[in-house]
Parts: sequence; C-alpha cells; structure tokens
Amino acid sequence: MQLTSPGTTVGVVGGGQLGRMLGEAAGPLGIELVVSDPTSDPPAAPVTRDQVVGDFDDESTIRELGERADYLTFEIELADPDALERVREETETPVHPTPETLRVIQDKLVQKRRLSEKGVPVPEFRAVGSADELREALDELGYPAMLKAREGGYDGRGNVPVETPDDVEEAFEAIDGPAMVEEFVEFERELAVMGCQGDGEVDTFPVTETIHEEEILRQMVSPPRTSPAVQERAKAVARDVLDVLEGRGVFGIELFETSDGKILLNEIAPRPHNSGHWTIEGCHTSQFEQHLRAVTGLPLGTTERRCPTASANILGDIDERQPARLRGVESVLERDRAALHWYGKREVYRLRKMGHVTLPGAEETDQTELLDSLGACMASLTFETE
Amino acid sequence: MQLTSPGTTVGVVGGGQLGRMLGEAAGPLGIELVVSDPTSDPPAAPVTRDQVVGDFDDESTIRELGERADYLTFEIELADPDALERVREETETPVHPTPETLRVIQDKLVQKRRLSEKGVPVPEFRAVGSADELREALDELGYPAMLKAREGGYDGRGNVPVETPDDVEEAFEAIDGPAMVEEFVEFERELAVMGCQGDGEVDTFPVTETIHEEEILRQMVSPPRTSPAVQERAKAVARDVLDVLEGRGVFGIELFETSDGKILLNEIAPRPHNSGHWTIEGCHTSQFEQHLRAVTGLPLGTTERRCPTASANILGDIDERQPARLRGVESVLERDRAALHWYGKREVYRLRKMGHVTLPGAEETDQTELLDSLGACMASLTFETE
Repeated sequence: MQLTSPGTTVGVVGGGQLGRMLGEAAGPLGIELVVSDPTSDPPAAPVTRDQVVGDFDDESTIRELGERADYLTFEIELADPDALERVREETETPVHPTPETLRVIQDKLVQKRRLSEKGVPVPEFRAVGSADELREALDELGYPAMLKAREGGYDGRGNVPVETPDDVEEAFEAIDGPAMVEEFVEFERELAVMGCQGDGEVDTFPVTETIHEEEILRQMVSPPRTSPAVQERAKAVARDVLDVLEGRGVFGIELFETSDGKILLNEIAPRPHNSGHWTIEGCHTSQFEQHLRAVTGLPLGTTERRCPTASANILGDIDERQPARLRGVESVLERDRAALHWYGKREVYRLRKMGHVTLPGAEETDQTELLDSLGACMASLTFETE
Repeated sequence: MQLTSPGTTVGVVGGGQLGRMLGEAAGPLGIELVVSDPTSDPPAAPVTRDQVVGDFDDESTIRELGERADYLTFEIELADPDALERVREETETPVHPTPETLRVIQDKLVQKRRLSEKGVPVPEFRAVGSADELREALDELGYPAMLKAREGGYDGRGNVPVETPDDVEEAFEAIDGPAMVEEFVEFERELAVMGCQGDGEVDTFPVTETIHEEEILRQMVSPPRTSPAVQERAKAVARDVLDVLEGRGVFGIELFETSDGKILLNEIAPRPHNSGHWTIEGCHTSQFEQHLRAVTGLPLGTTERRCPTASANILGDIDERQPARLRGVESVLERDRAALHWYGKREVYRLRKMGHVTLPGAEETDQTELLDSLGACMASLTFETE
C-alpha cells in the first residue's frame, strides 16, 4: 500500500454539506475530491479540488467524474444507479457502495422487502398504489400509520402520517405516486448506527440516540440513554443490515427502540449521515474519513468513541428563502470544546440544515446534561433578515 | 458576531503543508482560504478556494491576496514584511501577525535583542560580521557554539556548529553573510509552546517535548517528560515572549530546558509550527483552527489537551529528488487511533517533511511507551524509487 502525490482521486456525486465534510477529511489521507452538483458553487467547493456542474442523475456529469476519478461514490440518494452502472462499465472506475445497493435503498418498498426477507426486524408494511389499497392495508395494520413515497423522500419529505380513516384520501393525494404504508411504531426512542464496510472488513460506530422534531433530526448523543443490552441489539441489527448491502462505504442505519426494548429498522442511507456528524470530534475516526478509507480500499480506522458527545443541527428559522446570515455565533465559539460546523450554504429557509455544533463531554458526563449544555450555547443562534 | 455564506476570506502567503492544514481547519468555521505560492499546485491547493502563483516576497502577488481577502496572514517567514505593510495600507486589509512582528522575527539577531531587552531568558549571543569578529565573540562565549545566519534559516539550514577555534573560518564562510553566534546550550531536553493571541485574549497550548536529529524535528510528545514546575516555567516564558509580539495568530515558541531546570528561549515562528501538529487530534482546538480564529478576530478556542499525544514526522529518506511515493502505509492506517497526515508534495528528497503521524494515548499512557508505539507503526514507512 503506497501514498503518492497527487493522491487518489474520489469522484463524489453531490457537493452539499456531506461532500464538504468529506473534503475536510480527505486532505490528511492524501485523497483529492472532485464533486458534482447542479449548483455552481456548492458547500463542498471551497475545500475540494474541483467541481463538475450537472444534475445528480445526469449521465454525462457522472461520466466526467468517472473519467477523472479513481473511485466513484455519492453523498445523496438522488444519484442515478443506472447511470452509475453504465459509467462503471465504460470507465472501469469502481463505484462504492454499488449502484445495486443504491437502487435497493432508493425504493423504500424494495428496501423493506429485501431486509425483511433476510430476517431484519422491520415495522409491518404494505405496498399501496391507490387510496383504496391504502384503506385496505390500514384495515389490517390499524391507525395511526405512516404513508411513505417509495422514492425521493428526504428529511421527512414524502412521509405523511395517517391518523384516522378520514385522512386516507388526502394522505394518498399528498404522496401522489407509488407508496408504501407502515404501522406506526410507538417507539421509546430513536437510535442510529453508522455501519461501515471496507475491503473485507465490517464494523459499526457506537450507537447514537437521535432526537427528531417535525421529522427533522435536531439533536443526537452517544452513548444513547438506553441500556447496554439494547445498544448491543442495535449493533446486531445493524450488522444484519450490512449483510444485505453490497459495496464499500459507511451506511446510516436508523432504528426504533420500542417500549419493550426491541429494535426495528426504520431507514437506511447508503452514505455518511447526519446521525454520524458527532464522530468528527467524538471518535478517533470520523464517519467521513471512514467512508473515504472504505471507498478507496484503505484499512478501516477504529470506531472507538473518544468521549460522550452530543451534536445539534443549526436549522433555518425563517420562512422566506434569502441569503444566509447567522447571528449569535459568539456563544458557541466561546463555549469550551464546542465545535462549530458551518456548511456555507448561500441561502437559508425554514428547517434547512445550515450547520451543526458538537459538544464533547467528560468521561462521566450525563447525556441529558450534555444536551442541555449544548442547547444553552446554541440558544442565541438565529438567522437574520436583511 | 455573525456567519455568512460565502464566509470570511483569509489570504495566506504560502501554500505548503501549513497552508494545507489551515485549509482543512477553515471549512468548519465557514472561512475560505486563498493562498499564494511560487509553485502552481502546492500542497494547500486541493483543500483551499483558490491560489495565486507568485513568490512569497512578490508584492503584486501579496496585493492580489490583499484585494481578495478580508484578512491576510502568512505560513512562512519568507513573506516580505515591507510588502505586507504597503499592501495593508493600500487595501486596508488587516495583516496578522503584524509585518513588524515578522520583521523582528526574521532577523535572529534583532529577535534575540528585542526579547533579551524585555527580560526573556535567552542564550548568550553576539552579532558577528566577519570571521575575526566570530573568533573574538567565541573568546568570550567559549567553544562549542552555534553560528546562525541572521536571516533565511529554516529547519536548521543556516545554523553551523563551531566546535573549536580551527572551525571558525570555515563556519563563517558557510554562512557567508550577517550572522550571530550563540553559546551552545547543554540542554536536558527541548520544549515548545504554541502561544496564541486573539482579539484581546492571550493563551498557550500545553507544553510539548520536541526531539530533533540533525536539527530537524523528528518526534514530539505532550505532556513532556519533565516536571509540572518546569512546564509552568516554560509557559511563563512563552507568555513573556507573547508580550513582545504584536498582532494576532499562533506562535511557535521553541525552548531549551537546561540540566538545572531553567528555561531559555531558542527560536520563535510567527505562525503554526511543526511542534503543534499534535494538537489536531490531541487538543479540542487545533493550532490551525486557533490561528484562523485569532487572525479573523473570533474568540479563541480552549487549548485543553484531550489526552497524552505523540507525533512524528514522515521525512524524505532518499537523496535524489524525485516524485513522491511512500510505501508501508498500511501499518499506520491499521494502527488504532493513529492519524495519518500526508502533505501531497509532488517530490521527495532527503529530510523533506512529507507528512506526519499522530498517536493519541490513553489518559495514563507513559510518554516513552507512546513514542515507541508510534515509532513501531511508522517503522515500515519508506519512500520508493522508480
């Protein structure tokens, strides 16, 4: 195994915050990134070698990445698996995770079927193609339930709760396309595990507790406020999930912990994931370094946690889309150990992920206290209108 | 205090490994870098916004940086203080540290005089302009001694030991210019402190033990293998040094610990320094993040050490300058917690700094054991000839 200059080039479909944090992690490994993004100066641009402008599913854009890179990967599920497959064939540039894995994960129905067949515990679900089918499915599954678009959902978009039989028509119209419906899981808490597959190696990062509101991830903390036995079960489910997925890289595996301590799979992301942002400061290897190690076939780094660690997202808090300007940053920067991560997005709108803050704690820190401290130093953050 | 997109731009004279590591630290703070370097694709290029090609002391290059940036700084002492001063005046772009500080530090004689006047303990020294003056000075200071070029020294270049009166002529010829001579300090060990000056704040990072061979830094470890009292004295001297220096930024302060536990100042670098590389993993704030916080007037981060930490440089081990190709990297990448930093330099030559490896230890780790573990995982690193 050898290092050269210039180093290995990785082409990344997507130049958002995940591409940016991949860029920040690439330098020390001697890896150079070229990203593709439909916008001309995306968050990843200032910290990566170069950018190709083009849609995530545009084949000529992906081909250009494939021609310039030694390995191809993606940081957004909107990448097109068919195009990735053809470019892999034409350019002989390996794609990780595999396009087939992306294809399975893109379609939530196919994803759940595949996992369920392999024995991964998932909520009860049914395919639904019409409002009538939805009503029939809910006669079996009961109310409330969660109706999900099979494709294209992101940060809770494409998910519609169905509370009563009266909601059926409206819910199906809101999705307006192929869908699936899942039993509503009365969870005790939500957990996530970043899984990683390298060249003949499989590992999992420590379990994270994730706290959502309006289906958007707000805060996360590791270790989670649950028992070691539940954490072991969560890791075991994550391992079973990884068994189903082909190709190298990190995978965000979102889980429900039910009130009786069972683990059910919620969703998978075939890429670095918001629930793993705390690993930048909280682990010896970040999820971003790990993804680059995995994709390029380097040995995986240790997933050991340095210390209890909490993170929280900086979300847009104004309705009208406009240039980004965040006030009150001094209370984060003045807080010992707090690490700011600003994504450099040009415009802000309500609930847009604009950055995050991570707060590592002392060895014996209580997670609730850590989350409270983090909340306190972020309380004055607010986006400013002109 | 507010964050915007695009963020604050910092212009950096120099695009070597220090510029590269500044680039890796800039993204999370929302800071964008533009670097200048005489070579067209320097180490910093893949992780920074843009590059201006031009010599470190070329005024039009510095002016272009000044016009594009909100703040100017430098990562190499070869930057020209006069040019920086004029550009500051013309463009109204603040320069940190100040050009005057750079000027004082560039001339080792002026540096030592200024520090000595302010009560900082330094080795005995004399200005020497000829072999005769050198001989006279050494009649007072005694043999051996260290002859140093007043300007332009770097990584031990420009330093010549004078062992006996017979060496005087040859030593002076080797320097061939304005010089100073210092008593040879019989040190117990070498220490370094990264000092930092922000906007109305002053702080020091934990003391580092530095291990040199052939005047090149090889290894460093923090905490150093010396008493807490000596560490406090080292920090006190560093504070006194900072009192003499104007402008914001981090400063590498190299010290001697004598056999009777006294601290003497060796040299100062007005920038991030090799002896502070371990802070990337070893402290909650790295020296690179701290430099950017300081230069742009953000609050300084905590200098708290996370854990005992050792680093070692990856130095070129072949004589003939040629494309860089490092073998044996797997033993570093497979070592739990070891962090690789590759600088992406295109060519290797003997003793060139090509990268470094950092190994964080457990809380109770013995420093000698930590250095030995680090040495073991780096033992197989070797540059390959074609």
